[in-house]
Amino acid sequence: MSDKKKKKPQKLKARLPRGFVDRSAADIRATEEMTAKIKAVYENYGFDPVETPLFEYTDALGKFLPDQDRPNEGVFSLTDDDDQWMSLRYDLTAPLARHVAENFNDIQLPYRTYRAGYVFRNEKPGPGRFRQFMQFDADVVGAPGVQTDAEMCMMMADTMEALGIPRGDYVIRVNNRKVLDGVLEAIGLGGEENAGQRLTVLRAIDKLDKFPIDEVKKLLRTGRWDGGEEGKGDFTKGAGLGEIQANQLLGFLTSQLKLKRSEDGSFSWNRVLLPGFEALPEHQLPSDYGALSAGMRELLDMQIMFDAAGYSADRIKIDPSVVRGLEYYTGPVYEAELTFDVTNEKGEKVVFGSVGGGGRYDGLVSRFMGQPVPATGFSIGVSRLMTALKNLGKLGASEVIEPVLVTVMDGDAEAMGRYQKMTQELRKAGIRAEMYQGNWKKFGNQLKYADRRGCPIAIIQGGDERAEGVVQIKDLIEGKRLSGEIEDNAEWREARVAQETVPEGDLVAKVRQMLDAQAEDRRRAG
Amino acid sequence: MSDKKKKKPQKLKARLPRGFVDRSAADIRATEEMTAKIKAVYENYGFDPVETPLFEYTDALGKFLPDQDRPNEGVFSLTDDDDQWMSLRYDLTAPLARHVAENFNDIQLPYRTYRAGYVFRNEKPGPGRFRQFMQFDADVVGAPGVQTDAEMCMMMADTMEALGIPRGDYVIRVNNRKVLDGVLEAIGLGGEENAGQRLTVLRAIDKLDKFPIDEVKKLLRTGRWDGGEEGKGDFTKGAGLGEIQANQLLGFLTSQLKLKRSEDGSFSWNRVLLPGFEALPEHQLPSDYGALSAGMRELLDMQIMFDAAGYSADRIKIDPSVVRGLEYYTGPVYEAELTFDVTNEKGEKVVFGSVGGGGRYDGLVSRFMGQPVPATGFSIGVSRLMTALKNLGKLGASEVIEPVLVTVMDGDAEAMGRYQKMTQELRKAGIRAEMYQGNWKKFGNQLKYADRRGCPIAIIQGGDERAEGVVQIKDLIEGKRLSGEIEDNAEWREARVAQETVPEGDLVAKVRQMLDAQAEDRRRAG
Repeated sequence: MSDKKKKKPQKLKARLPRGFVDRSAADIRATEEMTAKIKAVYENYGFDPVETPLFEYTDALGKFLPDQDRPNEGVFSLTDDDDQWMSLRYDLTAPLARHVAENFNDIQLPYRTYRAGYVFRNEKPGPGRFRQFMQFDADVVGAPGVQTDAEMCMMMADTMEALGIPRGDYVIRVNNRKVLDGVLEAIGLGGEENAGQRLTVLRAIDKLDKFPIDEVKKLLRTGRWDGGEEGKGDFTKGAGLGEIQANQLLGFLTSQLKLKRSEDGSFSWNRVLLPGFEALPEHQLPSDYGALSAGMRELLDMQIMFDAAGYSADRIKIDPSVVRGLEYYTGPVYEAELTFDVTNEKGEKVVFGSVGGGGRYDGLVSRFMGQPVPATGFSIGVSRLMTALKNLGKLGASEVIEPVLVTVMDGDAEAMGRYQKMTQELRKAGIRAEMYQGNWKKFGNQLKYADRRGCPIAIIQGGDERAEGVVQIKDLIEGKRLSGEIEDNAEWREARVAQETVPEGDLVAKVRQMLDAQAEDRRRAG
Repeated sequence: MSDKKKKKPQKLKARLPRGFVDRSAADIRATEEMTAKIKAVYENYGFDPVETPLFEYTDALGKFLPDQDRPNEGVFSLTDDDDQWMSLRYDLTAPLARHVAENFNDIQLPYRTYRAGYVFRNEKPGPGRFRQFMQFDADVVGAPGVQTDAEMCMMMADTMEALGIPRGDYVIRVNNRKVLDGVLEAIGLGGEENAGQRLTVLRAIDKLDKFPIDEVKKLLRTGRWDGGEEGKGDFTKGAGLGEIQANQLLGFLTSQLKLKRSEDGSFSWNRVLLPGFEALPEHQLPSDYGALSAGMRELLDMQIMFDAAGYSADRIKIDPSVVRGLEYYTGPVYEAELTFDVTNEKGEKVVFGSVGGGGRYDGLVSRFMGQPVPATGFSIGVSRLMTALKNLGKLGASEVIEPVLVTVMDGDAEAMGRYQKMTQELRKAGIRAEMYQGNWKKFGNQLKYADRRGCPIAIIQGGDERAEGVVQIKDLIEGKRLSGEIEDNAEWREARVAQETVPEGDLVAKVRQMLDAQAEDRRRAG
């Protein structure tokens, strides 16, 4: 084997696959801090964790990927050795549906669960567009009523606040697919024969939070050039609606819904049309108002519950323009939108936008079963939400103290053993510590390492110190300390010494004292 | 779309792909409890988290899978749309090597990191053999000396104790690949031409903790029938060693190494041969003892450090029979073995065995670089370790209180709103709570749900209670309480009532009081 090692190996290129990223310590710690807060809210709401594997049989996943018409487009798939197609999950909902159906007799309904995990999209990678990313989902299966959807909206609102997003900087927007279906029916897009056109319309509407209304209208009619004018950029084919159809639809979607309580105590909606849009003529609505009417009734019930539980319109708001891209929703849909401005890559001020959402998907579990199984749930895009929290300065509150560095002045095994023993004593006292593990012969490298690593303290023991039974303890923060904001700084500094020599037996106590003084400094500096 | 929904969908079969599992709430919580303890040890040792994605380019992973000779055998691979082969990682070491090489100029060496994550093996699934499982790794890159390997062994030992495994129930066993290489050279298996035979020998030796010595000897010689006798079960071809070669090798591997301190203060090894085995004749050893000598020297240095830092042989033990299956190790190898007995599926008492291990892999990062980059690290098999901890009763200490159930007696939106409001008040007080989300009309179902779910308390408010402005609070644990071990049980029970009616405004305080009483019961019951 030693001969083999001598051979010069062919040099490989180290590179990440396209669209994938490595995660830094700061990123991992921030994610953990964030997901712990989300989890605490879901647990408080009585949800339990459950997880599925990353693979599913391709047929079990179904073709429910947003913006994908062809089956298997957008997913990573391969054949197993028994020739069955398997795919990496592209979301956490389809696998949950499979899990519930497979274990239906053992599961106590309503089944309230949450899960965080990676999902995969086999798409062309781009800036901020990754092929592996984390979602955090919560779902209730076996709950047929809109009280569950209402609770989901409240849980989203509470989650936003638990993460430190101030009231006013977020809103949970709620709509109902039945309302959309009803409106589409009313403008002549009902029936199986118009399914394709309806999907194109839904995707166009889903862009209302990204594009101005006129641009969405282009997508509803003949199509849109994404360069802003004809011939510029890619062309997206439109849904082919006529001018009146498009206006009626947009008029409805952009109208304001206000809950009205009548004298007799009953509730109804008041709809205020935005100027420039056409009202849906009554005679175009289905005779019994069909799905539209049922959907409006559900929204009304939800609004009543929001009011009763104290979630006012600055937190949860009925909004007819919410679509959610996925085809499988069957009732209420809801999304969490962050309403503060950020600057995009073009230097423009834009609303931060959606960080998650979901809705009722009564058909997804039933695909596997002989019976209907209602379900509702939502998903949070973890990295997108993290970007938002960074923008708000709401992450990284938990302080990471870098390790105390025990330097090495002598490299034989017995000396190393002694340095390791000091290190272990610090660790046993709960002090994060490490012994220098690089080439010890250049002492400058050890201090450079401590500096780059941000070590707060270095421990030094050369031959002389050892003979005297002492160690040097060097405060590496003291020299760098910013003095600006500390009021009685001079006085405070006087009491501190940047380097001390203490008996070996006092090592832990002295290090502890120095770390405490540094913590006090940070506290004083705010 | 409504037409579409009316169509009866073709019924799909809900099934997990072979070799994959869903994870229950208990399993997820136990894993989190365990990994949090492991993480705390690694952080204390000055390690930081870093993570890589699940995919790597296939060439970057290399063919370092245990028990796999052919490239790509054993991994899940697919081609990207630019025709490059990508694979799901099969361990966390190869991706770390890629990460370090790709970011070499930005990384401060020595680079001390840890990570937990899923890895994938495209193997035939079997009982307890999964195709997706979690590993928890720690590595130091850029540290050339065995002081780092020694520290890794100490960290493994500390991890075992942090998890509650008592001293004496685990041992970290340490060997050195150079020793093995030297011994193989000594029995005539040196040189590139014997590389294949050496690998077969290593894999046979690796079975020493699973099989009796005679069975391993069969694998070293002509081969072994896994049914126990000729013609029974599968046949594994042997390494083709002669009787004397096999005896010499096994004699060395099973010998006891004891550290000897001479009068002059120098250290050396004392080797005690087990009866029935042949000593390696001195003249068969390489002239300068070659790799064997270097390896023994490194083990000696590590033993000196273990002694100095206070890690005695009941915690970390030099053991020449440790191999570790992976081909890429170049120096010290080490593994954590749990030494207590468990009963296997055949009803036999067996030592629990390895829960993790690793070693020095100085060649793995270098494959990408023009320069040598030393590294050492180890991996813990998370689910295997969890099985061990369950055996020892060391998991599940953290108590999960199931939610208080607010039952539903009236289904209109206003009533639902009121029930939800009560639920939210409990949650705001930090009490885990949920409102019943199933079909509320059968009240029996609600209490059955509460019972199966293990809800500690049910809240009930029907029309009469509502008119009076009161709620019923039902203690669901009280009836079930085990009275055995509680001494002053009768007295204690007297003070408790299983159901109380209180004013709405006292809801939270009363529920809190009842939960506290239940906690006190559990405390008394031990």
